[in-house]
Amino acid sequence: MTPCLTPDELNQFLRAAFPDRADQDLAQVLAVGPGHAQLRLVPGKANLRPGGIVSGPTLMGLADSAAYAVVLAHIGLVAMAVTSQLNYSFLRGCDFGPVTADAQLLRLGRRLAVVDVRLWTSSAERPVGQASVTYAIPGAAQ
Amino acid sequence: MTPCLTPDELNQFLRAAFPDRADQDLAQVLAVGPGHAQLRLVPGKANLRPGGIVSGPTLMGLADSAAYAVVLAHIGLVAMAVTSQLNYSFLRGCDFGPVTADAQLLRLGRRLAVVDVRLWTSSAERPVGQASVTYAIPGAAQ
Amino acid sequence: MTPCLTPDELNQFLRAAFPDRADQDLAQVLAVGPGHAQLRLVPGKANLRPGGIVSGPTLMGLADSAAYAVVLAHIGLVAMAVTSQLNYSFLRGCDFGPVTADAQLLRLGRRLAVVDVRLWTSSAERPVGQASVTYAIPGAAQ
Amino acid sequence: MTPCLTPDELNQFLRAAFPDRADQDLAQVLAVGPGHAQLRLVPGKANLRPGGIVSGPTLMGLADSAAYAVVLAHIGLVAMAVTSQLNYSFLRGCDFGPVTADAQLLRLGRRLAVVDVRLWTSSAERPVGQASVTYAIPGAAQ
Repeated sequence: MTPCLTPDELNQFLRAAFPDRADQDLAQVLAVGPGHAQLRLVPGKANLRPGGIVSGPTLMGLADSAAYAVVLAHIGLVAMAVTSQLNYSFLRGCDFGPVTADAQLLRLGRRLAVVDVRLWTSSAERPVGQASVTYAIPGAAQ
Repeated sequence: MTPCLTPDELNQFLRAAFPDRADQDLAQVLAVGPGHAQLRLVPGKANLRPGGIVSGPTLMGLADSAAYAVVLAHIGLVAMAVTSQLNYSFLRGCDFGPVTADAQLLRLGRRLAVVDVRLWTSSAERPVGQASVTYAIPGAAQ
Repeated sequence: MTPCLTPDELNQFLRAAFPDRADQDLAQVLAVGPGHAQLRLVPGKANLRPGGIVSGPTLMGLADSAAYAVVLAHIGLVAMAVTSQLNYSFLRGCDFGPVTADAQLLRLGRRLAVVDVRLWTSSAERPVGQASVTYAIPGAAQ
Repeated sequence: MTPCLTPDELNQFLRAAFPDRADQDLAQVLAVGPGHAQLRLVPGKANLRPGGIVSGPTLMGLADSAAYAVVLAHIGLVAMAVTSQLNYSFLRGCDFGPVTADAQLLRLGRRLAVVDVRLWTSSAERPVGQASVTYAIPGAAQ
């Protein structure tokens, strides 16, 4: 599991892929490594829910982006991967501020990739959420 | 399972609860019934993903809102429910246009509610997604 | 979505596929229809958990069998489908006695099938569990 | 997160709690630590599925036992915890032989515990499955 793309290449691709998305909904890839990618999102006010914490859709979207990034980092930009399943566990209220996501490939098959994602704010030891994300890799069927 | 709130009451509550959320991220409650709520979202361009289809976070957010609405419709606005788990299956690409969500209470316990949500565009017989959403009902513990 | 196998054909296949499985772990297919299959399991004492209710693995196994049956009923016995994901929500304690499972195909693609399963005992209106099961269909990739 | 029970105490409790369960369906607790428990299951022929690999219900049952053990190890034997949700990703075919499960508490709240479980055979680096398990802790509501 050796990545074939840099964080810069992934960020350029994601920025171009979502031209109409607001900045506060677009996470930055910070680092990639074997089977791993780390992203960060700086939420805006539109990402809050009652209680002043970061909303569920924002966190699920970040988990999805992190899984997308780690898959692309290992298969390249040519194949168009689509999420087939996303299971999200809300573990703690997420305070307003930057949110980090660590995505780890559990399996990268020809047709399916499964990714574990942990989201956290102040400490990776106290995750605010965990996601299991399955991606279908259409190119493999051709 | 008799609802205690009307669609209008729910819409006013949701609009007030998310004052900074853009209109295209806020679904409208169309109907409520015993154990059931129906919502509709009219996505904007910011909700698209590559391929011109509605993005995953948009659909997961709609599923979450629909589950939230059906729970509140049956327990009232006093209790503050929080999502504890959301499992989403992407079934088909979701064409750009209004998306309808049908939420059905599978169980409404004192502490946990479990909701099945189906999302569709042109026909309920061809869902674009299915979600199982678990809500924790904090008020019940007091 | 027209089934191509009868309950008898499915039962013979399942009995042969699991020759060492105890009877109380082998569900019977009762009916098949367009996009649908219904199975029943009669648990034994080995299927109980503390409190005298049917154990979680028994119920998850029944959900898996029901999803397997509805997929095979529509694609035939030739393709070897394997479960890729099973999400199970425990809704109520399951009293000791026969358990019925209704499996509905949400999507039958070339490579992935997604099935909704409801488990119940005395009344389908009061499910004891709900499962979302994803099957990978390997034959499709060849 | 300091465990309050030893592997021996947990094994005695599990053996007594499932008096009618066959040995090949009962995992042994090997170790406990802060937020962690490790279990092992030695499957029998009744646990196989077509292809000679370990069946899905066997693996899901092991994941459930591992989550149960790590929760009990940290809250004691007095509270009766029940699984409310189990999400299982099948990552690879599981060869016939002993299966190890590593369970890690992601959150231990008053009312809900969320556990990440990894199952593996020859190497923890190549998991055969991953599960996210939510337990409801009824005692906390009283």
